[in-house]
Amino acid sequence: MAGTNSELELIAEGPAIILVEPQLGENIGMVARAMANFGLAELRLVNPRDGWPSEKARAAASKADHVIDATKVYETLEDAIRDLNFVYATTARERYGFKPVLAPVTATETLRAKFKAGEKTGILFGRERWGLTNEEVALADEIVTFPVNPAFASLNIAQAVLLMSYEWMKSGMEDLSETAFESVQQRPSTKEQVFGLFDHIEEALDARGYFHPAEKKPKMVDNLRAVLSRRGFTEQEISVFRGVIKSLDVFPRRWPKKVEKSVEGEGTPENGSGD
Amino acid sequence: MAGTNSELELIAEGPAIILVEPQLGENIGMVARAMANFGLAELRLVNPRDGWPSEKARAAASKADHVIDATKVYETLEDAIRDLNFVYATTARERYGFKPVLAPVTATETLRAKFKAGEKTGILFGRERWGLTNEEVALADEIVTFPVNPAFASLNIAQAVLLMSYEWMKSGMEDLSETAFESVQQRPSTKEQVFGLFDHIEEALDARGYFHPAEKKPKMVDNLRAVLSRRGFTEQEISVFRGVIKSLDVFPRRWPKKVEKSVEGEGTPENGSGD
Repeated sequence: MAGTNSELELIAEGPAIILVEPQLGENIGMVARAMANFGLAELRLVNPRDGWPSEKARAAASKADHVIDATKVYETLEDAIRDLNFVYATTARERYGFKPVLAPVTATETLRAKFKAGEKTGILFGRERWGLTNEEVALADEIVTFPVNPAFASLNIAQAVLLMSYEWMKSGMEDLSETAFESVQQRPSTKEQVFGLFDHIEEALDARGYFHPAEKKPKMVDNLRAVLSRRGFTEQEISVFRGVIKSLDVFPRRWPKKVEKSVEGEGTPENGSGD
Repeated sequence: MAGTNSELELIAEGPAIILVEPQLGENIGMVARAMANFGLAELRLVNPRDGWPSEKARAAASKADHVIDATKVYETLEDAIRDLNFVYATTARERYGFKPVLAPVTATETLRAKFKAGEKTGILFGRERWGLTNEEVALADEIVTFPVNPAFASLNIAQAVLLMSYEWMKSGMEDLSETAFESVQQRPSTKEQVFGLFDHIEEALDARGYFHPAEKKPKMVDNLRAVLSRRGFTEQEISVFRGVIKSLDVFPRRWPKKVEKSVEGEGTPENGSGD
């Protein structure tokens, strides 16, 4: 389910997203949703073709109502950015000019630094079909372009906003490998626990004639121990393994084994060597 | 315009994207487009609700036909991943289990390393409404989750695929600040060129009585030079500036100046000191 969860922190800060002459309400709504996903909240529209408010936009925003409700509309791009200190223009096409051209990663670092310094910033996105004019790009300080497949470079406007919003969120993280939740914390096993696993398995196998012929036993034990120690099992994993071995070793089958294609393996099965 | 451009390199390699029971053809098409944008090409569908092929998917793919045409359909998730060596499951919800949980940045580094080693990999995405079941997650090796706004965490499936595809593309770049095109290469100006600009402006201003009163001239010159050297102008920029100064200095107005609100500034305007 989309929508805000009022029990959790709602992040709503950072650069304004400015859409120049957007055509489809659905796209505006998807932009609002993408912004909300990554903590942005200030959406500005320059001269939207189908007017504002837009029920199509609200529906496509999947309950990002805090963005839709705060959206402001302007007649000109100049009006939309008058109060800002620094503005990026996004573009997929090469522009000839003096402006620096940055990747999203570096642009959002700049935006984050300016945000921390109390500056108001914005990111311009052009029309669905043909982007920003050169005159509009000229109003921005610098240019951002996306690293895309050269032969398939056209990004949907909502996806372009999503990428910039995502990089904005990441620019505020100290550790990029950080995740919202983590796997269950597990303690690495001690060698003592690993040796316990070795002993348990080897005894159960030995009791069934697995190590056959006898002169191969040392090599077979080596191989088995290599398999059991390669991935560095945790305490919990060793506990799972020992439960499995205990069950196989101690309890009888409750129904007969189905005949299956045999899988080649080292050692002899419980019915002894096949030769 | 979207669609492939056959004159440019079409990247089509890397992990398979596996959608489990996707519902809407439009979403499948947007997934294909996002994959094509960032160089992925292998789409697998497990049991798509509305069947396959899908005209809605093709339309939404915006000419990512090479992805749509190569899409394969499977009855079960197991069938869809049998030939792969390593699989990530994406999820927004916390899962209790032993699997490592990674951010997209670190997961795509792993995928890139396995790709270079010749392993076949895949990334699982769940249903639009409720994602992957725990049993489906259990078939994957590790989990990926996105750094999102805690109170607005639900990503559209095409946007989730876009982010993973984008990070995949970035994982293959040596320099993350690299862009598809760069600003016009400009040579930094020499100090000689900067001094030429100083001289030009200062002479033109002096001839109009700008440096008034005389005892303030050194301080005013200092301030002016600080403004002119702060951003490290390039040769081309200095050339633009000198053209502007020449025009203002040498040529007369062709029509009278409109009366405007005055802007406070240092020095006296061309009609001399106001006092």
